[in-house]
Amino acid sequence: MKITLNSDMGESFGIHSFGNDRALLGLIDTANVACGFHAGDPSGIRETVTGAAAAGITIGAHPGLPDLVGFGRREMKLFPEEVRDIVQYQVGALKGFLDAAGVQLDHIKPHGSLYGMVSRDEALMDAVCDVAAQYEVPIYGMAGTAHERVSAARGIPFLAEFYVDLEYAADGGLIIARRPHATPVERAVERMTVALTEGVAIAVTGERVPMKFDTVCVHSDTPNAVEVATAIRTVIDSQDSVSGKAHHV
Amino acid sequence: MKITLNSDMGESFGIHSFGNDRALLGLIDTANVACGFHAGDPSGIRETVTGAAAAGITIGAHPGLPDLVGFGRREMKLFPEEVRDIVQYQVGALKGFLDAAGVQLDHIKPHGSLYGMVSRDEALMDAVCDVAAQYEVPIYGMAGTAHERVSAARGIPFLAEFYVDLEYAADGGLIIARRPHATPVERAVERMTVALTEGVAIAVTGERVPMKFDTVCVHSDTPNAVEVATAIRTVIDSQDSVSGKAHHV
Amino acid sequence: MKITLNSDMGESFGIHSFGNDRALLGLIDTANVACGFHAGDPSGIRETVTGAAAAGITIGAHPGLPDLVGFGRREMKLFPEEVRDIVQYQVGALKGFLDAAGVQLDHIKPHGSLYGMVSRDEALMDAVCDVAAQYEVPIYGMAGTAHERVSAARGIPFLAEFYVDLEYAADGGLIIARRPHATPVERAVERMTVALTEGVAIAVTGERVPMKFDTVCVHSDTPNAVEVATAIRTVIDSQDSVSGKAHHV
Amino acid sequence: MKITLNSDMGESFGIHSFGNDRALLGLIDTANVACGFHAGDPSGIRETVTGAAAAGITIGAHPGLPDLVGFGRREMKLFPEEVRDIVQYQVGALKGFLDAAGVQLDHIKPHGSLYGMVSRDEALMDAVCDVAAQYEVPIYGMAGTAHERVSAARGIPFLAEFYVDLEYAADGGLIIARRPHATPVERAVERMTVALTEGVAIAVTGERVPMKFDTVCVHSDTPNAVEVATAIRTVIDSQDSVSGKAHHV
Repeated sequence: MKITLNSDMGESFGIHSFGNDRALLGLIDTANVACGFHAGDPSGIRETVTGAAAAGITIGAHPGLPDLVGFGRREMKLFPEEVRDIVQYQVGALKGFLDAAGVQLDHIKPHGSLYGMVSRDEALMDAVCDVAAQYEVPIYGMAGTAHERVSAARGIPFLAEFYVDLEYAADGGLIIARRPHATPVERAVERMTVALTEGVAIAVTGERVPMKFDTVCVHSDTPNAVEVATAIRTVIDSQDSVSGKAHHV
Repeated sequence: MKITLNSDMGESFGIHSFGNDRALLGLIDTANVACGFHAGDPSGIRETVTGAAAAGITIGAHPGLPDLVGFGRREMKLFPEEVRDIVQYQVGALKGFLDAAGVQLDHIKPHGSLYGMVSRDEALMDAVCDVAAQYEVPIYGMAGTAHERVSAARGIPFLAEFYVDLEYAADGGLIIARRPHATPVERAVERMTVALTEGVAIAVTGERVPMKFDTVCVHSDTPNAVEVATAIRTVIDSQDSVSGKAHHV
Repeated sequence: MKITLNSDMGESFGIHSFGNDRALLGLIDTANVACGFHAGDPSGIRETVTGAAAAGITIGAHPGLPDLVGFGRREMKLFPEEVRDIVQYQVGALKGFLDAAGVQLDHIKPHGSLYGMVSRDEALMDAVCDVAAQYEVPIYGMAGTAHERVSAARGIPFLAEFYVDLEYAADGGLIIARRPHATPVERAVERMTVALTEGVAIAVTGERVPMKFDTVCVHSDTPNAVEVATAIRTVIDSQDSVSGKAHHV
Repeated sequence: MKITLNSDMGESFGIHSFGNDRALLGLIDTANVACGFHAGDPSGIRETVTGAAAAGITIGAHPGLPDLVGFGRREMKLFPEEVRDIVQYQVGALKGFLDAAGVQLDHIKPHGSLYGMVSRDEALMDAVCDVAAQYEVPIYGMAGTAHERVSAARGIPFLAEFYVDLEYAADGGLIIARRPHATPVERAVERMTVALTEGVAIAVTGERVPMKFDTVCVHSDTPNAVEVATAIRTVIDSQDSVSGKAHHV
């Protein structure tokens, strides 16, 4: 299986946008589209779906916490049913636009703190799985967390992600800043190369963290997202061509 | 065709609700469920859908303007594409809950000022029709307005509504108060009876306004909604049994 | 010092309200007015302020988390500066309406999960104190928590609350349900009497929890809030008249 | 009186911003700060206020319609009391941050469609004046409209604005696009020069529209806002130095 490049997109709101989406569409394999709770308004969602469909890439849902000001990056204490219901609502809303565009829902990838919350809490993750099961789509998440465990228990296909623009902690957890900042391109390339060739991420504290992944995420809200995605696309493609040999770890 | 009784439901928000939904479920034929923009949050939508499905009544979408404080009753100047996109988003979101409950989307009925706006502006109504066409469902609206004309032009089935708890103007327009108030039951019954037997509404200014309708709406946000619905249910049912004779005007 | 009765008010949103505010105005000494983030819209705030001013009771600010659907009862992970800024914003907004009505801001009482968060986290409580210091008003909170400790450290007057319509845990913590439910009046009266005469609350698990308080809170979102407030008003007033003797514990 | 340069600022939302505010602070005389309804969140407001205070420029309130997705640029049908209350709420909220920073509220300038609505409807403008009267501050608006007429009738100081980055219609009305686009700098400079020297704006249809103004507005949401402001600053300053002679028309 070929490693793919995914990006969280459509994270604009009204006239505010990060400005990277158009260029990213030509670089990535699949777009995780914001659904209105942490970002994304109806017209922006349609525009993103139309653009991604025209670019011939697949589209997944990227539901978040109901917190526009915090961009879904402030944890909220929710009941499992609340998680299920906000994911249901957002995925359904996106699905309508996909149906209109004649494209399939490809996967579900929770956003920001919701992603983090459901990586640690199996009951919450089970709630996300309810929606994935309904639409019969795989879940994107982090290997070795509740993302993978609960998906497996529910018989839902799971694709593991590697992040080239975030730092990892020694325990494999992601270190997410509340505000986006540029990732040095050479640092992202180095991370990607090490992950592909050695199957590890180097934690901020120096440890080698085993890293199994099927897809690589580049965020669209960092100022140099297009540069990073361009460089990573090259690394992935050259890796593919050099070695028919193999799979990442 | 039998005249049906419909009600706008699920118009709660968080812990706030009008408190009439449960009783109304046993009285009406179809529920127009709020979709989150003028009222309705994800968990409330699921609860309403589940309740309506259990009661064996059909479920339509009741999309509104993005204005919680104004309960969707303050007109907003929107482009047709914006109307299409907010209706698309809301109907899609509701559809997800319907799919989960294993029930069909029955119809689309715009809410409040959106209902009024699209009754007067054909371009806006055309945008609503885009979504109805996608889901292949009929539209509920007011006979003789853009609701009916544009639906007809687009080949979308149309069901005309009669309102027993609102006053009509001489031109057939509805007089909608921003805040709900009780409708005297006897006044509602009188309106219903006159409409059924004579095919007219008596305007606040006394004129007899021709009234063609397939379905009768009782609002759920008036304090005595359950009383009104109970009385109207009786009128409709007795009318049906007395006369196999037929269709209202 | 006389024990006062306070109530969280103005927790309506648009046309949704709990319906108890008008009656409560005649029963309480001070109103904690919602400021728009967990409940309360601009026109509702003006109405509440005008009503409270007309009733001659004092008015405090009742700022909450930015979560209308959750009514501010779902914890959010916020930075201290974010807590300071959302409290600043809400108290300032309320202050404008108070200035217009010619009344003073009496105190600040955080709402729901914000109240709980700042009772446990001193950095967050310090952020609330920044705003109280700016307006030179006391803080309402729970004795023995960060509410009291940080207020004391900052030299901000503090008034301790007792809750007659909530259960206490053995450690003195409040047990807050997400959805309001009626409190049996006799249970509230019993709690109030025990607290006044013995200086304790009886925890749900039976322990006697020492309870020091200056003011008693009755929630306005419980269905029988007016009944409860009426009964508690009687208990407090009779206590006052019987004993000139003194202060609760 | 010297002509000043003002800009609508703090129109970020969460991590989204237009990115021009920092540079503009060094170019303008006064900042109209967004207050949270069309843009601006509490922490962003504090940051903007702090920045403007540090830059030594004055600060006005820039309240808008409650419509984040539409950036306050979609007209809403509001009652005068609703306009008064949303302006009251927003100005009060900003005032809290100003008090904290130890600076005065300088003026009130309604934003976007609210600005347009109250330029045409005297009852709505009167509602804005209620709040300006409360804070004893002038209003920024368009000469010859209800902005000026109602302010005069209420005895509220009024400062007329000229827009260098918007087109004028033949009747003196502004042509406002929903989405920002760059204004050619030479076009803005030409407009400014013609307005200063001849006291007119050239309408898109060629007419010479008399233009009386005290202050010039540069929007912060256009991509080249900083360039435009830099050029206009130069024009204004050179005009001032050349002619001690006087006032624009």
